[in-house]
Amino acid sequence: MTPRAFLFLAIFWAASSDAAESPADRTPFGFRPEDGTKQLQREAAYESLLDAKNLELWMRQMTTRPHHAGSPKAKENAEFIAGLFRSWGYETELEIYHVLIPRPKTRELQLLRPYPVTLPLTEQIIGSDAVAEALRAEALPPYNAYSGDGEVVGPLVYANRGLSDDYEVLERFGIDVKGKIVITRYGGSWRGIKPKVAHEKGAIGCIIFNDPGDDGYTQGSAYPDGAFKHDTAVQRGSVLDMPVRAGDPLTPFRGATQDAQRLPRDQADTIMKIPVLPISSVDAEKLLRALDGPVVPDHWKGALPLTYRFGGSGKTVARLKLEFNWGLVPAHNIIARLKGSEYPDEWVLRGNHHDAWVIGARDPMSGLVPLLEQARAFGMLREKTGWYPKRTLLFCVWDAEEPALLGSTEWCEHHAAELREKAVAYVNTDGTSRGFLGVAGSHALETLAAQAAHEVVDPQTGASVSDRLRASWLVNGTEERKKLAKERRDLYLGALGSGSDYTPFLQHLGIASFDVRFTGEAQGGEYHTCFDTFDHFTRFLDPGFDYCLALAKVCGRLTLRLADAEVLPFDFRGASQTYSRYLGEVTKLADDLRKSTEQANQLLEEGLPKLAADPTLPFVPPKPKEPVPFFNFALLQNAAEDLKAAAESYHQALRSVLDGKQAPAKADLLALNRALFHSERALLSEKGLPRRPWFRHQIYAPGFYTGYGVKTLPGVREAIEERKWEEADQEIRHAADALKRYAAEIRKAASLLKKTGKP
Amino acid sequence: MTPRAFLFLAIFWAASSDAAESPADRTPFGFRPEDGTKQLQREAAYESLLDAKNLELWMRQMTTRPHHAGSPKAKENAEFIAGLFRSWGYETELEIYHVLIPRPKTRELQLLRPYPVTLPLTEQIIGSDAVAEALRAEALPPYNAYSGDGEVVGPLVYANRGLSDDYEVLERFGIDVKGKIVITRYGGSWRGIKPKVAHEKGAIGCIIFNDPGDDGYTQGSAYPDGAFKHDTAVQRGSVLDMPVRAGDPLTPFRGATQDAQRLPRDQADTIMKIPVLPISSVDAEKLLRALDGPVVPDHWKGALPLTYRFGGSGKTVARLKLEFNWGLVPAHNIIARLKGSEYPDEWVLRGNHHDAWVIGARDPMSGLVPLLEQARAFGMLREKTGWYPKRTLLFCVWDAEEPALLGSTEWCEHHAAELREKAVAYVNTDGTSRGFLGVAGSHALETLAAQAAHEVVDPQTGASVSDRLRASWLVNGTEERKKLAKERRDLYLGALGSGSDYTPFLQHLGIASFDVRFTGEAQGGEYHTCFDTFDHFTRFLDPGFDYCLALAKVCGRLTLRLADAEVLPFDFRGASQTYSRYLGEVTKLADDLRKSTEQANQLLEEGLPKLAADPTLPFVPPKPKEPVPFFNFALLQNAAEDLKAAAESYHQALRSVLDGKQAPAKADLLALNRALFHSERALLSEKGLPRRPWFRHQIYAPGFYTGYGVKTLPGVREAIEERKWEEADQEIRHAADALKRYAAEIRKAASLLKKTGKP
Repeated sequence: MTPRAFLFLAIFWAASSDAAESPADRTPFGFRPEDGTKQLQREAAYESLLDAKNLELWMRQMTTRPHHAGSPKAKENAEFIAGLFRSWGYETELEIYHVLIPRPKTRELQLLRPYPVTLPLTEQIIGSDAVAEALRAEALPPYNAYSGDGEVVGPLVYANRGLSDDYEVLERFGIDVKGKIVITRYGGSWRGIKPKVAHEKGAIGCIIFNDPGDDGYTQGSAYPDGAFKHDTAVQRGSVLDMPVRAGDPLTPFRGATQDAQRLPRDQADTIMKIPVLPISSVDAEKLLRALDGPVVPDHWKGALPLTYRFGGSGKTVARLKLEFNWGLVPAHNIIARLKGSEYPDEWVLRGNHHDAWVIGARDPMSGLVPLLEQARAFGMLREKTGWYPKRTLLFCVWDAEEPALLGSTEWCEHHAAELREKAVAYVNTDGTSRGFLGVAGSHALETLAAQAAHEVVDPQTGASVSDRLRASWLVNGTEERKKLAKERRDLYLGALGSGSDYTPFLQHLGIASFDVRFTGEAQGGEYHTCFDTFDHFTRFLDPGFDYCLALAKVCGRLTLRLADAEVLPFDFRGASQTYSRYLGEVTKLADDLRKSTEQANQLLEEGLPKLAADPTLPFVPPKPKEPVPFFNFALLQNAAEDLKAAAESYHQALRSVLDGKQAPAKADLLALNRALFHSERALLSEKGLPRRPWFRHQIYAPGFYTGYGVKTLPGVREAIEERKWEEADQEIRHAADALKRYAAEIRKAASLLKKTGKP
Repeated sequence: MTPRAFLFLAIFWAASSDAAESPADRTPFGFRPEDGTKQLQREAAYESLLDAKNLELWMRQMTTRPHHAGSPKAKENAEFIAGLFRSWGYETELEIYHVLIPRPKTRELQLLRPYPVTLPLTEQIIGSDAVAEALRAEALPPYNAYSGDGEVVGPLVYANRGLSDDYEVLERFGIDVKGKIVITRYGGSWRGIKPKVAHEKGAIGCIIFNDPGDDGYTQGSAYPDGAFKHDTAVQRGSVLDMPVRAGDPLTPFRGATQDAQRLPRDQADTIMKIPVLPISSVDAEKLLRALDGPVVPDHWKGALPLTYRFGGSGKTVARLKLEFNWGLVPAHNIIARLKGSEYPDEWVLRGNHHDAWVIGARDPMSGLVPLLEQARAFGMLREKTGWYPKRTLLFCVWDAEEPALLGSTEWCEHHAAELREKAVAYVNTDGTSRGFLGVAGSHALETLAAQAAHEVVDPQTGASVSDRLRASWLVNGTEERKKLAKERRDLYLGALGSGSDYTPFLQHLGIASFDVRFTGEAQGGEYHTCFDTFDHFTRFLDPGFDYCLALAKVCGRLTLRLADAEVLPFDFRGASQTYSRYLGEVTKLADDLRKSTEQANQLLEEGLPKLAADPTLPFVPPKPKEPVPFFNFALLQNAAEDLKAAAESYHQALRSVLDGKQAPAKADLLALNRALFHSERALLSEKGLPRRPWFRHQIYAPGFYTGYGVKTLPGVREAIEERKWEEADQEIRHAADALKRYAAEIRKAASLLKKTGKP
């Protein structure tokens, strides 16, 4: 069936299920068939305007020098970007916030025992061109932002990835990290979790290194021969306690304007308490070779050619000294507006950051240049065809994302009231590369994402990016993904944790959000190192900018549909299904934990762990664990049923007006759409999550102990995982209340729809 | 309940279930309570005679020089061992066979392209003591016995472990090994499978190396600092096609006596067709660094500090030249007899080999010296207490096990008729070390093993070795082992594949067998290298010979019970249960394969594998596979039910005579016991397994493509695995027939028992 044939179907608005059940149904959800056809034509026109040469030009221009937040080049880039937007007809302003970003003054790491070694702690810059010269002159040295200041001396302990489970292993071997310095591998969690857990366990310092097994020679040739990590390369990055709160640590819950009220630094609870330093594999090897003690378990072993041991005995002692300059830094956000022709107070936001840790070709430029090209093409569309979006479009280019999502968070906090009222949705991007579509976000927008992904052609295969993603799930996916992919042809939306600028929108303000990227076929070791350069990106990650263009296509279609749909494309049946799946997961989590706890306690009671242990190695049996009670999941189960009914009722209402030929009154649509985009706010709780009130979303949060990785139904899931039984029941109530509020909003939309649908 | 209390239980013979259900029931299965108590006392007396000093003395003495089969030291050791047996009162003879064992004359391996490298192919001998000097002077250099002669030049391809699945991966990348030399890692199968599969796939040569990820620095400190593999160390070993037939390749099915009829060498079908050479990790690194092409999948990656690539493009070319001296060598078996006082024509055999690849402290001396100490203690027992075994005991010390189980196989083939008639059971050992009991064998003897293991105390924990093994299963086992260990307190007997001298007994002649060792807490990299020395063993593997002594205890009890039980301790309920479990596995295998085949074919039909593949890498989709039909498992299911009923009937008969107080007539016992130990013969089929008639056992065989690893119900299982549908149905019939014959033998024993049990 061609799109034209659809015109003759007497459908008022395309209903999602039809779209979802058959990719052949292309009428964009939320549009009347005739408007849908025009919309598809406009999107095709949009795609035809995109030009890879612009992406290449801009990336090259903005990556000639390091452009971390506060650097001259970051300011220069911000002004360059603002100039571009203005040239394309956007009402553009630079919004500046004054944020705390520490810069290293002293970085010293030595082995004192069993023999003295002073580590160089530097990345080898390759080449002698202008970029290499700028790197030598201006790059921030490897460090972790918001590490504690200080000098510590202590025995060195290897703690694998530095996660809670790893400390369980150390305890079994009788190794206590109190008063010691832990050395951990990157990976397995967001980096900030490693010093956070180390500090909780009593360690006095934390070293993080890149093991070549993760992104070095084990994975492929190292740069400059290949994309993988040079042995001197170091991943920089923030260790602010962002799972507690993103943004400036001195201005919680408010924008870091010039005159904002600021906490004294020693009261800033998200700053790491102990010194933390990232080092290269070549430096780490020197430390690890000096460790003694038992050999670590297999899953702790990296790929350095040595025997990984626990250390911790005191025979290996290290000294770590770090001092930072704790001054405020100006962060330059660029906000570019194209005012909506019909609903100027409904804002569709599209964002990407511009600051980098060093040169940042991939992170963030590979996401930013598609955003710029999207904005340019929208400008051309307006110029050429007279098109104006019905809703106001905001292109937001954030500064200081890297240290703590500062630009986006301060702006969200500063404009919270207006955003809560007006923000329809936020579409985020960040670094991207060659491969498969990765799209995560609010599940009420799953149908929108699924339909848009069906329209965009994969540059390498000619299939839709959606079909290609599904193929990879069916062929190479986990068992769970295979099962999901078999159940329907359309894509499944991932859930958002953290790691980029959507966090303040979604999880603090309850604005439905997307994060979009391509990934999976162009891995590398450049992340947050000196080697994330134009040369690296264009040789290894997306030569020809094909996937950068595909990203512009996906995001362009998402933005255009959100901007112009008569009825906003919220489809609550997808959300209802997905949230029920999450509920199934947490009930299973509780059941599995109950069973495994029983079994472990039984083994302990019989003394079997001790009997099974090698007596020549230290072994401390674990303590018996408190049994897992049964929880009142019925509250959530009832709420989920209520949501399902509400979602169905909304969908029926949508169907019941299929015969209506007349366009509804604008006032009715205003009320309906407002109810729709405000629905996501209902999923927030005012109190927020336990111990982190800034995070309010009851469905999506970064894990308290994963950092970036999402925890869905986070209050409930984490209470169970952390064995806080009373809190689990309390969080079940909070989540159930949120689902009930959400269902109520949906019912409100359904009743407005019924009213609207009447001729 | 103390053992004494048992005396008052009116049980004629201890019935296995009681023993199996409670380890507190110590009365040895097959004994009357009063005899059982005496038996336990005799076993205690036996254990008290064991002295670790002897083990140390003999191991030191027999490991001063290399003692591979045919070497002067092997002959010297054989004569020394024979002398010991004679001194302890055994009727002892040296039985010599003349077997084909190739010795290397030329070993050359070079990289020709992209740059010339000639590999040294030598192990670095450490130290300057007499042993080191002897190693330098007399050790066989690293080689694979029964490699083909020849010189080959060709592109080098890395093929991971060299198994069928690995070639599937190569095919997906469009890499053909025809006319090329493959380089494979040790591990994942018996080594001989690697050149066998390489040859089947068209390769012209095969190199096998030790990756440090398997037994080198990744696992622990390398020798001499620790137990793990020195980077120059090379695992020697046979590549004769032993899954087809063990023993001298020139004298199939008959003993290689001086005047035996011999095949010409070019008709010996088990000799490898292509040259094969084992090399060290330090040599392998030079070859692997030269390979180009795509990076291999994660599970192909070893621990060398380089990027593992497929190669195969022709840019990397190697030359391998091997020449061997193909002369016959005398193999000196030692057979020492203690004639049975009541049943001289019922033979209980206990064996271990004496030849090594080099010095062989662990392999085989750590198994041999406990056997010698067992024999010495039996001699003392006889001298001190006048005890004589009721049945004839044969201590067999084999030569030339390493090249092809030559000593044991030729002896079994030579004495096949007598053994079929008289052999009750064979108890084998080989290398051992510190850790957990590993006991595998014929499942009719599971109760015997379980009871004996309950009596032997673990040297490190004071628990029984059985309880300790169960603890390790429950705490660290796979899910399947955990499940089994929960189901009962007694140990489960493993199934025998191959890799030591039990193979001709069990799988060729149908003599119920055991293989016993301790393992799991003292790993090392010494296997078949120059580093398997007294120093290595006593520093790292079993300091103090504690586990060698425990091995002597377990094997002593097994042998004593087999020798003296009034009714031989065959318990068919365990066999019936276990064989039913195997049947469940093969039916599941067929179902799983049917499902996965359907799914894979469906994906192919939709073109999804190609769509999911990275277009910048070569990718050849697999061909659709023939669907898996349904098989007539009913035949086997009915036979298994029949066996279950027979086993139950035998057990009931045993119970029905519990009240009998009178000892049965000797003639009745003769007939009964003969039926019992002949039962295992019923599990053979005269035709043997497909393509390997020498292997006749229908329940246990080494895998045709695993080499040592067992395949239970091998005809059926391998037919399904190899997608030979007609053969699967045929093998189901053969296996069902074997189970029916077995059930008939058991019914015969039951009827004799009923007769016997009558006063």
